[in-house]
Amino acid sequence: MLFGALEAGGTKMVLAIGNENGEILEQVSIPTETPGITIPKIIDYFMNKNILALGIGSFGPIDLNKESKMYGYITSTPKVAWANYNIVGSIKNSLSIPIGFDTDVNCSALGEATWGSTKGLSNSIYITVGTGIGVGVYINGELLHGMLHPEAGHILIHKHHKDTFKGVCPYHTTCLEGLASGTAIEKRWGKKAEDLREFPEVWNLEAYYIGQAIVNYILTLSPQRIVLGGGVIHQKQLFPLIREQVKEQLNGYIKTDQIEHIEEYIVPAKLKDNQGIMGCIQLAKQSLL
Amino acid sequence: MLFGALEAGGTKMVLAIGNENGEILEQVSIPTETPGITIPKIIDYFMNKNILALGIGSFGPIDLNKESKMYGYITSTPKVAWANYNIVGSIKNSLSIPIGFDTDVNCSALGEATWGSTKGLSNSIYITVGTGIGVGVYINGELLHGMLHPEAGHILIHKHHKDTFKGVCPYHTTCLEGLASGTAIEKRWGKKAEDLREFPEVWNLEAYYIGQAIVNYILTLSPQRIVLGGGVIHQKQLFPLIREQVKEQLNGYIKTDQIEHIEEYIVPAKLKDNQGIMGCIQLAKQSLL
Ligand SMILES: Nc1ncnc2c1ncn2[C@@H]1O[C@H](COP(=O)(O)OP(=O)(O)O)[C@@H](O)[C@H]1O
Ligand SMILES: Nc1ncnc2c1ncn2[C@@H]1O[C@H](COP(=O)(O)OP(=O)(O)O)[C@@H](O)[C@H]1O
Ligand SMILES: [Zn+2]
Ligand SMILES: [Zn+2]
Repeated sequence: MLFGALEAGGTKMVLAIGNENGEILEQVSIPTETPGITIPKIIDYFMNKNILALGIGSFGPIDLNKESKMYGYITSTPKVAWANYNIVGSIKNSLSIPIGFDTDVNCSALGEATWGSTKGLSNSIYITVGTGIGVGVYINGELLHGMLHPEAGHILIHKHHKDTFKGVCPYHTTCLEGLASGTAIEKRWGKKAEDLREFPEVWNLEAYYIGQAIVNYILTLSPQRIVLGGGVIHQKQLFPLIREQVKEQLNGYIKTDQIEHIEEYIVPAKLKDNQGIMGCIQLAKQSLL
Repeated sequence: MLFGALEAGGTKMVLAIGNENGEILEQVSIPTETPGITIPKIIDYFMNKNILALGIGSFGPIDLNKESKMYGYITSTPKVAWANYNIVGSIKNSLSIPIGFDTDVNCSALGEATWGSTKGLSNSIYITVGTGIGVGVYINGELLHGMLHPEAGHILIHKHHKDTFKGVCPYHTTCLEGLASGTAIEKRWGKKAEDLREFPEVWNLEAYYIGQAIVNYILTLSPQRIVLGGGVIHQKQLFPLIREQVKEQLNGYIKTDQIEHIEEYIVPAKLKDNQGIMGCIQLAKQSLL
């Protein structure tokens, strides 16, 4: 059985064909231009590929409410050409197959929950720290939507008492993304995150913020495991620092086996940057149910 | 059909008998002493009452993992006599009926979701602001557990820049409960919260903190509606202030119909302080499934 997968990002689209085991059989990547240019290319790619269904993991915000008139739309994005664009509808018009639709980070959470680090668990989260920060949430075996979908990269947090940086979020002065995304790191320290490896102060502060956010996710969502991915997380030295910060900032308030064995609780993505696209395949499979 | 309901609190136990519509037919309250004294009284009360099942909403932390050896226990509470106490097991031994078990705030969330302000919605939260602060979470029609259960009263937040109060949480310097519970209000201002009605600075600061926490719950859980209850929330002037703070601190980042009509989104409990005990009745009903 073949399934299509589309990871719709603000700068590029990743298109793939996979099977029911999540194996990627082929994959291409095209730049994200306007819908008028990009959507026909996407349709061309998937046409005649014998796929049973398509899964789309999209940048947001998106409308996931099946009762809404705007279901399947990208809504209020700053990428003007894509704002209020019916991405599901316009692809479905041409392909006429079932389409699963969710946020990009929810798809990564689903990929890891199906084939990766959180396989077999009913409750988990996936945090990406890249250009921005996003959180995918998987609860009782389902991706979390509710009113909209999680936007937990923007939670308001306590600023480190020595940090005088103003943040990069246009909406919030002290949100996680504004203080700890790759964009924030570059602006604060004057160099790209990948070029700052040998500066421990960068990673200590980064771990302080990510650790604080994880404490809040633990207290609010109580996940059974937490997976980290995204460009900034390629700095593997962050893991012990983040785990240490989580323990320090929780300060013994939550006592569970998982927190005690924190190296198995806060872990890297297992799917080697394929968690998103593999999640889209699982979403496609689920759309057949 | 008759069901038993037990709200197990740190200072008192509320015991009730209700029917399948959540109507409370009788109710008593006894002080929480040691298990040796209090549990036999509870068993006596429910014995011979013809109840089909019992629902227990308990102070915590508690073990809700049905696979755990400690399922049904109150675990690491500072109330020493009740720490590591098998409350479900000891009652079940005598009553021999199905028992539903959850946290006190999850029961309040369930009560409101079944018969109150959030009836008909699949995703909602209930926040109690009393001696402490607790959050019950209802997602896709089920109460949230996961690794443990939500403890979202202790999320770490950004301190108001004019606030010099140290907080009352023994674990965290800047958690919500430490800065905004009834206990915190009394310690900060030198008077009980109920005696501070005419001091607007008290309620402005309180709304700043509760509003900030709600922003984080919205960004993380994306509830379709938020219900507030507990002693401090009897100060009804808080509602417009909290709604204002939520809008101000979200700062336009989330655009939904619900946020636009925020007076219907952030609302008081409808069940007149019976949300907890009525939730226990629903929990009892569900234990028959
Ligand atoms: N090896 C690395 N170490 C640290 N930061 C990195 C590394 N590679 C990329 N980044 C940072 O991650 C961000 C890009 O994140 P990425 O997850 O690759 O893409 P996006 O978030 O746009 O989907 C940039 O801010 C970049 O500086
Ligand atoms: N009318 C009121 N206005 C403001 N605060 C109140 C009021 N009534 C009780 N409180 C405060 O609420 C707290 C008690 O909360 P409550 O929900 O009644 O009990 P608990 O949290 O112990 O279950 C105390 O801190 C008390 O000062
Ligand atoms: Zn932000
Ligand atoms: Zn605390």
